[in-house]
Amino acid sequence: MTPQAATPAYRRLSVEERRSQLLDAALSLFAHRAPEDVSLDDVAEAAGVSRPLVYRYFPGGKQQLYEAALRSAAEELEHCFDEPREGPLLPRLARALDRYLAFVDLHDAGFSALLQGGSVVETSRTTAIVDGVRRAAAQHILRHLDVADPGPRLRMTVRMWITAVEAASLIWLDEDKQPPLDELRDWLVDQFGAVLSVTARRDPQTAALVDALAADG
Amino acid sequence: MTPQAATPAYRRLSVEERRSQLLDAALSLFAHRAPEDVSLDDVAEAAGVSRPLVYRYFPGGKQQLYEAALRSAAEELEHCFDEPREGPLLPRLARALDRYLAFVDLHDAGFSALLQGGSVVETSRTTAIVDGVRRAAAQHILRHLDVADPGPRLRMTVRMWITAVEAASLIWLDEDKQPPLDELRDWLVDQFGAVLSVTARRDPQTAALVDALAADG
Repeated sequence: MTPQAATPAYRRLSVEERRSQLLDAALSLFAHRAPEDVSLDDVAEAAGVSRPLVYRYFPGGKQQLYEAALRSAAEELEHCFDEPREGPLLPRLARALDRYLAFVDLHDAGFSALLQGGSVVETSRTTAIVDGVRRAAAQHILRHLDVADPGPRLRMTVRMWITAVEAASLIWLDEDKQPPLDELRDWLVDQFGAVLSVTARRDPQTAALVDALAADG
Repeated sequence: MTPQAATPAYRRLSVEERRSQLLDAALSLFAHRAPEDVSLDDVAEAAGVSRPLVYRYFPGGKQQLYEAALRSAAEELEHCFDEPREGPLLPRLARALDRYLAFVDLHDAGFSALLQGGSVVETSRTTAIVDGVRRAAAQHILRHLDVADPGPRLRMTVRMWITAVEAASLIWLDEDKQPPLDELRDWLVDQFGAVLSVTARRDPQTAALVDALAADG
């Protein structure tokens, strides 16, 4: 962990730049290894800085760094579903899923470790961050559905579909990233349409929405 | 926590009977409170025995008792999907869901605490127990589908649906147990049919299964 004079780390960085450099290094490590297999030394080495410097920015050590990295990943994930409200709905959903699945593809091991739980650094705070992403995704989708006051059946349908997408992502990583991303995306979009139609049979609000979607298709 | 001479706990119980009495007491406490809010004193009191007796059976303390209670709940949950392979498939699935949802209804707080994670007594072992239930449920369903060698798309569909059922259970508990259980059950069975049909469009094995189900209906 000896500082290496020639690394870009020794450019003068602002506090914000340095913090974000450390977070990037941590995220790329957490993305490919389970959190318990990443040490602060690894983060220091990946960022080309000394371990004390990492501690200066994250005095809470690995737990604090992990939570900060997770929060920055969560922000990125939330942006996936932040799609302009223009054009037919299902293609919008397909574009959001493209971004989401690209994130899953890029951060594979870290994504699994986080969602499968059981990690030694998982706490109620990290669980709350993950739940926040789920809630944000549901809110984005409900806004796209353009329903003034979504009822419990419609909200439940959207939340169930989001969980199914999460499960699909984990299984997809487990199965050597099969089927190809394009097929997985279309499959998930079709499932969304199908579960909405099932809910439409017992919920007039969802029935009106499904009719509107068919007209808009 | 003084032993009370008149309680049934002072009948002479065999080791197995005593163990199962303590597990029942623990399960009913964990069912209605988060694990961190249950103490060994509470378990001793609920079972009408002394705290040292609880320790004699569970020398690992609360963590060991929690895992044992969880394992016994997991066995019960796995049995929910163990339905005779007779008659049309979707009614079999409806009967399995009736048992599963009755379990969710009975063990509400414990069920949420476990699946939502973030509990202080959660570990990779408890996570493994929960994953075991998911796997067992998937295997039961695949056996009922009567497909010799289920391919990745069919397996993924079943696992996604199981996750959606889990999400539905948690949301249902969160939403004051609405809609009524019968409606929730039928809704989930219909969703299963719908997502199978979506998979059938891109998977010949699932297409053959959907045809067989329609004939069998």
